[in-house]
Amino acid sequence: MQKTAVDLNCDMGESFGRYKLGLDEEVIKLISSANVGCGFHGGDPHVMRDTVALAKEHGVGVGAHPGLPDLLGFGRREMKVTPEEVKDYFIYQTGALKAFVEVAGMKLQHVKMHGALDTMARADEELAGAMCEATREISPDLIWLAHSGMLTGEIARNTGLKVVQEVYADRAYNADKTLVSRKLPGAVLKDPKEIGARIKQLMESGTITTIDGKTLELEFDSICVHGDTPGALEMIRTIRGILDDHNVAVKPMAEFI
Amino acid sequence: MQKTAVDLNCDMGESFGRYKLGLDEEVIKLISSANVGCGFHGGDPHVMRDTVALAKEHGVGVGAHPGLPDLLGFGRREMKVTPEEVKDYFIYQTGALKAFVEVAGMKLQHVKMHGALDTMARADEELAGAMCEATREISPDLIWLAHSGMLTGEIARNTGLKVVQEVYADRAYNADKTLVSRKLPGAVLKDPKEIGARIKQLMESGTITTIDGKTLELEFDSICVHGDTPGALEMIRTIRGILDDHNVAVKPMAEFI
Amino acid sequence: MQKTAVDLNCDMGESFGRYKLGLDEEVIKLISSANVGCGFHGGDPHVMRDTVALAKEHGVGVGAHPGLPDLLGFGRREMKVTPEEVKDYFIYQTGALKAFVEVAGMKLQHVKMHGALDTMARADEELAGAMCEATREISPDLIWLAHSGMLTGEIARNTGLKVVQEVYADRAYNADKTLVSRKLPGAVLKDPKEIGARIKQLMESGTITTIDGKTLELEFDSICVHGDTPGALEMIRTIRGILDDHNVAVKPMAEFI
Amino acid sequence: MQKTAVDLNCDMGESFGRYKLGLDEEVIKLISSANVGCGFHGGDPHVMRDTVALAKEHGVGVGAHPGLPDLLGFGRREMKVTPEEVKDYFIYQTGALKAFVEVAGMKLQHVKMHGALDTMARADEELAGAMCEATREISPDLIWLAHSGMLTGEIARNTGLKVVQEVYADRAYNADKTLVSRKLPGAVLKDPKEIGARIKQLMESGTITTIDGKTLELEFDSICVHGDTPGALEMIRTIRGILDDHNVAVKPMAEFI
Repeated sequence: MQKTAVDLNCDMGESFGRYKLGLDEEVIKLISSANVGCGFHGGDPHVMRDTVALAKEHGVGVGAHPGLPDLLGFGRREMKVTPEEVKDYFIYQTGALKAFVEVAGMKLQHVKMHGALDTMARADEELAGAMCEATREISPDLIWLAHSGMLTGEIARNTGLKVVQEVYADRAYNADKTLVSRKLPGAVLKDPKEIGARIKQLMESGTITTIDGKTLELEFDSICVHGDTPGALEMIRTIRGILDDHNVAVKPMAEFI
Repeated sequence: MQKTAVDLNCDMGESFGRYKLGLDEEVIKLISSANVGCGFHGGDPHVMRDTVALAKEHGVGVGAHPGLPDLLGFGRREMKVTPEEVKDYFIYQTGALKAFVEVAGMKLQHVKMHGALDTMARADEELAGAMCEATREISPDLIWLAHSGMLTGEIARNTGLKVVQEVYADRAYNADKTLVSRKLPGAVLKDPKEIGARIKQLMESGTITTIDGKTLELEFDSICVHGDTPGALEMIRTIRGILDDHNVAVKPMAEFI
Repeated sequence: MQKTAVDLNCDMGESFGRYKLGLDEEVIKLISSANVGCGFHGGDPHVMRDTVALAKEHGVGVGAHPGLPDLLGFGRREMKVTPEEVKDYFIYQTGALKAFVEVAGMKLQHVKMHGALDTMARADEELAGAMCEATREISPDLIWLAHSGMLTGEIARNTGLKVVQEVYADRAYNADKTLVSRKLPGAVLKDPKEIGARIKQLMESGTITTIDGKTLELEFDSICVHGDTPGALEMIRTIRGILDDHNVAVKPMAEFI
Repeated sequence: MQKTAVDLNCDMGESFGRYKLGLDEEVIKLISSANVGCGFHGGDPHVMRDTVALAKEHGVGVGAHPGLPDLLGFGRREMKVTPEEVKDYFIYQTGALKAFVEVAGMKLQHVKMHGALDTMARADEELAGAMCEATREISPDLIWLAHSGMLTGEIARNTGLKVVQEVYADRAYNADKTLVSRKLPGAVLKDPKEIGARIKQLMESGTITTIDGKTLELEFDSICVHGDTPGALEMIRTIRGILDDHNVAVKPMAEFI
C-alpha cells in the first residue's frame, strides 16, 4: 500500500557566532523536521533559539542533532570516546536544546546522531547503545531517527525508543543498505531527474536501485535532504513536487507514526 | 522569632576534564544545596553527571550555576554581552544540567549566577532581568538564589520567581549590604571563632556587624560556604556546630520556604 | 608633496573549520597587506597556513591580527582582561602565525589589534602599552599598524616600534579623528563615487572631510579596506583605479616606509 | 663505556586558567628538560610564560609538547586527523611556545609529542612524518625527543632532525621496546628501590629487564620522569641520587649530544 505521508528532515542550526552555515530560512519552508545543532560540532545558544523559533513558525518538528566536542572538525572526525562519555555528551546537548524547545512552548520530537558519531555507532554497538540509552533516559517519548536498515535502529528499539527510518534522497546505496562512500564516483546524486525518479520508485514500490543495479527494499518514514546550497534547495522542491504528484503529505514524523 | 531551619549552599562540580577543583566528595556531606557548574566557566558533562549523583546520594538540592563562556578566565572576567546573549547562555546551561538532574530522578531546585555575571547583574538591571526571565521560562518552580538585600532578588521576585536570600559566612559586609572588595584588608574572614560568632549573631538577632562596626539587618534562608581547601571544610564544620547548638536544622532550601 | 606609494590592508584568514568567512581568494589580488586571524577570534591552523600561502603567491605582506579569546563573539565583545593577560595573548597568537610565515620562507611584517582590543586600547593606555610591548619583544622589526591620529600609535612609537597609520576608506570620521559609531546614520560610506572622492582628496591634499563638514588633516601610509561582500570587492577596485589615476603604487607597507 | 651525562625530562606547564596540574615549582629544581604544554591539550598563554620563566631560572631546557585539540580529554583520546592537520597543529603550538621562549631570551630546545599523538604516530608513519616535518620546518636545530627504539625516532632522523631517545623510569617494558599497557598488572613501577635498580642497570650496562625477564638493550640520552604527585617527586630524587653515585651529570639534552 502506498504511503499517504512522509517526513522530510534536514540538518539545521549549525551556524556559530558570526559564522553562517546553510540556507535555514529558506529550507525551513520546505521540510517537516529539523535536526538542530546543539553547540558541540556546530550551533550556539543564539542559533538554537532562532532555529527553534523558525521551526515553530513553520510547523516543523524539532530534533536534537548532538555531535562530538570538535567544533574545529565540525564533529566529522572520529574520536576514541567511551560509551559513558558519549552518553554524557548526548544528555548535555539534548538537554540544552530541549530547554529552548520547551521555552518556546514546543515538545522535542526526535534525536539524530551527527557526523562521526553515526559512523562510530555502526562500528561499535556499545557506543550506539549508550546514545540510545541517553535519549530514552531524557524522555521515552523521543523518536530515534536512523538510517533505514541499520543496526542502530534495532538497538534503539530494544532500548525502548520509537524509531523512524530515513532514506537519503541524494546518495547512492550499496546492496547492504549502506551509503556509497563519498570518495567513490557516483556516490552523490546531483541530477534532479535522477533524484526525482528515485523518490517516485520509493513511493510506488518501496525500493531503491543500488549502485550496482540491484533492487533493494527499504523501509522508511522520512527522507533526509540537504539545504546548504541553492542547488540543494531546488532539489528539495523537486522532491516535494513528486510527493505532491503522488498525493503524499509532508508532515513531522511525530504526527503520523 | 528564631529560625528552625537554614540552607547551606556551596559551589560544586567545577572540575573540567583531567582538572580537579574543590573537595566535592567531602563538602557534599556538610551542605544542603549545591550550585553546580554547567560547562561554560567550569564543569563538563561527566563532572555534571557525577556531581548530581553525589548530591542525590547525600540528599542535597541541586541548582544550576551558569557562567560566562570563558573557561580560561573561570567566568570571572566581565564581558560586554547583551541581555539576549545572557538569556540564551542561561537557558543552554540550565537546560543541560536540568537534563542530568531529571535523568537522575530528581528535580532542579534553584539557579545562582556565577562569578562576573553576579557583578554585572548588580550594575545592569536589564542583564539581571534577562537572567531571571530565562530562569522563569525554564520553570516557574525554580528558586532564584541571590545575595541578601540586593536588587537582583527583587527583580527575580517581580519576574515571578521564588527567591531565597543568602549571606556569606566568611566575607565582611559594607553598610549597603554589599561584600567588602577582596582587594581591601579584612574582606575575607579566616578565624573560625569570628565566623562562629557571626553565625551566632545571625541566628539570634538576624543581624550582622559591618566592617565599620554598624549593626545591619539581613534577611536570609541560606548561608553560602566554600569548599576548596581543607581549611574551608573545617569552617563548614564549625558553622554546622553552631547551627546544631541553636537547634537549627540544615535543609535544602526547597524543603522549608 | 604627493605620495608615490600607499599600502592597502584588509582583514583575512578569519574562517574557522568548516565555516568560511570573506572572499579571501579574490581580495588577495587587490591588496598589499593582509591582517591574518590567529585562532582566538577567528582563523585556525589550516586557515593560517592557506592564507600565508595565498599572500606569498600574490606578494602580499602578512601581519598578525590577534584578538580576544572569544570565538563565539568573534572577538568583538570587550572583556575585562589585565595588561599581563593581553600581553600573553599577543605573544601566543603572533608567535603561532610567525611560525607559519617563517615556514613559508617569509618574514612577518606587522601587527594589528582586532575588534574589541582596539576599542579597549583607546580607553586604557596600560592595555595598549602591553600589546605594544608584546609586539616589540617578539621582534623590534614588526610594524605597528594603527588608526591615524590615535594615541595607540604614539604608545607604539614610544615602545620602540615602527608605526604605520591607516585611514578607513568606507567610514565617516569625527573631528577628533575617531570613526563615527556604526550606530549613527552615515557612519558607513557605501557609494563608490563618494569613496572615490575621499581617496582623491586624501591623495591630493592629505585631508578628509568629517561628518560635520570640517576639513581634517590625516597622516597615513595605509588604507584599510574590507573584503567580505561582492560590493566590498567592487569598492577596492574603485579605490585602486583612483590610485592608478594618481600614479600611486600599491605596495606592502614594509617596502616603502 | 659509561655515560657521563644524562638528561631528565618531565611534562610541565599543563595547568589551565584556574586549574592547576603538577608540582611544577618543585619538579623544575630536579630536572634538566621540560616538555611544555602549548594550549591544545593543556597549558595556556600565562602558564606558558610562567613555565618558561621557571625553566630559565633553573637552567632547564624548554621543549614544545604539542597535543590534539581536545582540552576536555587532555589530548589523550585518539582522533582521526589527517597528516596535514597534525602538521598545522604542530606549527601553531610550537610557534606559540617558541615566541615565549625567545621573548625570554632563550632558544627552544626540543619537541615531544603529547598523549594520543604518540600512540597514533606509532600506528601511522605518515602522521609521524608530518609531525617531524613540521618540527624541521620550524627549525632544523630542534631536537626530536622520542621513545628509545621506536620507529618515530628513525623517521625524525630521516627528516633531518637530531634525535634524543628516552627511557621511562617508572614503566615496565615489553620485549619489543614498547611500554606495557597501563591496563596490565605491573605496568607502572612504584617501588623506589625497583626504580633505583633499573636506573643503576641502565647506567652500568645500558640494558633493562623486560616484564617477562628478558634483558633488553636500550639506547638513551634522556630519562622521562613524572611530577604530578608528592610520591613522584620522591622518585625523581631517588633517581638523581643514583645518578650522583655513578658520577653522571644531569644536563639539558642540547648541552651534551
